[in-house]
Amino acid sequence: MRIECIAIGSELLTTRRLDTNSVWIAERLAALGLGLHRKTSVGDQREDLAELCLEAFQRSDLIVCTGGLGPTFDDFTKEVWADRFGVPLQEDPQCREVLVAWYAQRNRVPPPANFKQVLFPVGSEPLANPLGTAPGVWWERGGKRIVLLPGVPREMKRMWVDHVEPRLKPGAGGALHSRRLVVGGVPESALDQRTEAVRATHCDLEWTILAGLTQVELILRGRDPKALDAAQADLEVELGEDLARVGEGDLEEAVLDLLKARGETLATAESMSGGLLAARLTAIPGASGAFVGGAVVYTAAAKVALAGVDTALISRHGTISEATALALARGIRERLSATWGLAITGNAGPSLDTGGSNRALGDCIVAVAGADQFETRSFAMPGERQDIQLRSTAWALDLLRRMLAGGLAPKR
Amino acid sequence: MRIECIAIGSELLTTRRLDTNSVWIAERLAALGLGLHRKTSVGDQREDLAELCLEAFQRSDLIVCTGGLGPTFDDFTKEVWADRFGVPLQEDPQCREVLVAWYAQRNRVPPPANFKQVLFPVGSEPLANPLGTAPGVWWERGGKRIVLLPGVPREMKRMWVDHVEPRLKPGAGGALHSRRLVVGGVPESALDQRTEAVRATHCDLEWTILAGLTQVELILRGRDPKALDAAQADLEVELGEDLARVGEGDLEEAVLDLLKARGETLATAESMSGGLLAARLTAIPGASGAFVGGAVVYTAAAKVALAGVDTALISRHGTISEATALALARGIRERLSATWGLAITGNAGPSLDTGGSNRALGDCIVAVAGADQFETRSFAMPGERQDIQLRSTAWALDLLRRMLAGGLAPKR
Repeated sequence: MRIECIAIGSELLTTRRLDTNSVWIAERLAALGLGLHRKTSVGDQREDLAELCLEAFQRSDLIVCTGGLGPTFDDFTKEVWADRFGVPLQEDPQCREVLVAWYAQRNRVPPPANFKQVLFPVGSEPLANPLGTAPGVWWERGGKRIVLLPGVPREMKRMWVDHVEPRLKPGAGGALHSRRLVVGGVPESALDQRTEAVRATHCDLEWTILAGLTQVELILRGRDPKALDAAQADLEVELGEDLARVGEGDLEEAVLDLLKARGETLATAESMSGGLLAARLTAIPGASGAFVGGAVVYTAAAKVALAGVDTALISRHGTISEATALALARGIRERLSATWGLAITGNAGPSLDTGGSNRALGDCIVAVAGADQFETRSFAMPGERQDIQLRSTAWALDLLRRMLAGGLAPKR
Repeated sequence: MRIECIAIGSELLTTRRLDTNSVWIAERLAALGLGLHRKTSVGDQREDLAELCLEAFQRSDLIVCTGGLGPTFDDFTKEVWADRFGVPLQEDPQCREVLVAWYAQRNRVPPPANFKQVLFPVGSEPLANPLGTAPGVWWERGGKRIVLLPGVPREMKRMWVDHVEPRLKPGAGGALHSRRLVVGGVPESALDQRTEAVRATHCDLEWTILAGLTQVELILRGRDPKALDAAQADLEVELGEDLARVGEGDLEEAVLDLLKARGETLATAESMSGGLLAARLTAIPGASGAFVGGAVVYTAAAKVALAGVDTALISRHGTISEATALALARGIRERLSATWGLAITGNAGPSLDTGGSNRALGDCIVAVAGADQFETRSFAMPGERQDIQLRSTAWALDLLRRMLAGGLAPKR
C-alpha cells in the first residue's frame, strides 16, 4: 500500500511553521507496519493543491491531507477534492447541529463563514472533531482512500486515533511493536560495533540507532513481542551498566527514578552549564521527589558564597579543575543536606572567565559526591557553546547514574 | 518563477529527522523576493525519486534537491537526474583531486565508494563543498535550473551562499529587506489590535506576527529600507516600553545588553522554573559579563540555605507568595553581591510541593530587587508543566527589562 501525506498551508513553506503532523502520522503508520512513501507541503494556491491532488490520487492508495478545513477564503481542501471527482459539496445536518451546539456552549452563534465547515463532498463521510469546529473527511474512491484532517496538531491527532486508525488494516505482517533503549556514555560508532553481534542474531528485527547530543537510543521494531524480549535480554548482557533505560524517558528520568527507589536526594552546582542541569531535572514531573535544589555559580565569588568552596582552593587549582568540581559537589551537598552533590565546571566559550585555569574550549569536569564516596571525570567536548553545555549535563547525569546503579567501584 | 524543494532520504519520512533544509532555503529565497511553491520529502526508493524528478521538471523553473549525494548504495540523486535526461555520468578530474587531498589531509586515502561522489551528469557543473566530500551540482536544461546539494545542513548552507545565491536573480521587484521586533508582555491578539493603525499606514510592507510561548515577534518585509525605518519609528511610538528589542536576539539578550550598558550585574533565585531562567541567560555567549549566578531553590530548606530567606516568613506567607518571591530576590542579590536579584516562585504542577500556599496550577510570582527599588508581579498561566516553566522565565525577564529600561516608576 502506497501512502502519502499532504500538508496544506502557505505558512508551511516559510520558517514560521514546520509540518510536524506528517512526522507524527509516519510514526503511527510505522506502528501498524505501514510505511510513508512521500510527504509534500503546499501553499494556499488553489491550482497548486489541485495539481497535487491529481497526481497523488494516481500514484497512492491512501492520501492523508492536513489543513485547509477552516472557515476562511484560503481553506478549500474539500472543494479541491470534490472538483477532482466532479461532485458537489452538500451540508451534513448532523455536523451542522454539532457546530451550532459548539458555539451555543460558548454563548455564541456560529459566524456565517463557519457553515462552510459542515459541507462535504457527496459520497464522503464526515469525521467528528471533538476539539474544534472543523470536521474531517473519509472518502473511498476507486479502491483508494482519501483522508482530510484539520491542520491543528491536537485536533488532527485525536481524530487520527478516533477515526482513521480503526479503519486502517495493519500491514501484511501485522502490527509492529517497538522497544526503546537509552544508552549513556557510549558514542554512536562504538555502540554500532558493540551491538553488531546482537543485531546479527536478531536480524528479523528492524534496528535503528539514534544519536543525539546527550545520549544514544536504540529502537527495535518487530512483529513478535517475544523476539523483542529476547533481543533486549541479549542487549542487557552486552551493554551492562551502559544501558541507562528501557522504555520512555531519558537520562534525567533514569537518575530521578534511581534516586527515588533508593530514597535519596540530589543537589547540583553548575558553572559552565549555567542551570541547564537543574532545568533538565526539574522539567520532569515529580522531580521534587528527589531533587532539592542547586546553585548556578558562574563567578568564583558565587562558588564561595553558594557552595562554600574555599577561596584558597580555587586560587590553587583554578575554577576549572577536578579539585574545584569536587569541592562544588561536596559543598552543595552539605548546604542542601542532600544525599548526593553533582557538579559541573568547564569552558563552554567564548568569553567565560576560566579563572586562570587556562583550559581549552570544550573542556569539562563533572564530579559526584556522596556521604563516603566520590567520582570526578574530565571530558573534551566538540561543538558550540550550547552543545557543550548540553553535553556536559549528560556526562554529569550519566556519571551519577552509574554510581547509583552500583556499576562503579566507589572512591572513598 | 516557480521554485520547489525536494528533500531526499528515508529518515525524512520518519520521526528521526525533519527536513529543516527546505525551511532555511525558503527564508533565503524570501530575502531575494522569491517564493517557494512546494516542498516534498521522498525516501530512498529510486523509482519514487525518479517519478518526482519527472513531475518537478515539468512544473517548476528552479528545483533544489538536498540529500542523496553520499557514497553509499542508497545515494543516487545524480544518477536519477542523469537518467531523466538520458545522459551519462562522467568523472570531474578537479573534483577527484580535491577528494584525494581531503583524505590526504586526514592521512587517509578515499574509500573506493567515495569516488562515486566525483561523477557528474555530462553538461552539469560541479559545485565545490568546502566542508565535506560531496560536491553539489548546478545544471541548466531547457531554460530550467536544477540544483543538487548535500543533505548535511552545514554543508548545504555554505554551498547555497557560495554558489547558488550568486546565480539567482532577485524577484521582479528586487531584494526584500526585513526587520524584526521583539515585544514582551503583550499577547498576540492585543498586539494585533495595537499595531492595526501602523500596519494600515505601512500597507506596502509585508507583516507577520509570530507568537511564541515567551514573546511575540513582528517581522516586517519590504523592498525599500526607508519604508522599514518609517514603520519601525511608528511602532516605537506605539509600543513604547513593550518593544523589547529590534534585530536578532530575544528577551534574554535584551536584559543582558541593558545590564552591560549600565555596568550592572544580575543574580537569580528560582523555585518553579528550576534553573531554566539561569540556563536561558547563560546560553547566550558573553552572559558572564552581567550574570554572576543563581540558586535553584526547590524546597523551603533550599530557600533558606541558598537565598537566606527567613523560615518564619515562609511559614507565614507560604512558599508561593509575593513576600517569599521578594525575599528570594533580595536574598540572592545580597549573597552574590549583584546589582539586581530576580526570583520566580509558583506552581508548575503536577506534584510540586506548594508549601501550604494552596496556589492553583500555573500561578506564578516574579520579583525584582535592586538596591533601593523592587517590583513583584503575579500571573496565572495556562499550559503544561514545561510551558508554565518557560513562560514564567519570560515574565521574569520582561519585568526586569522594563525596570532597566526605566519604564516602571520604582517602588522603594
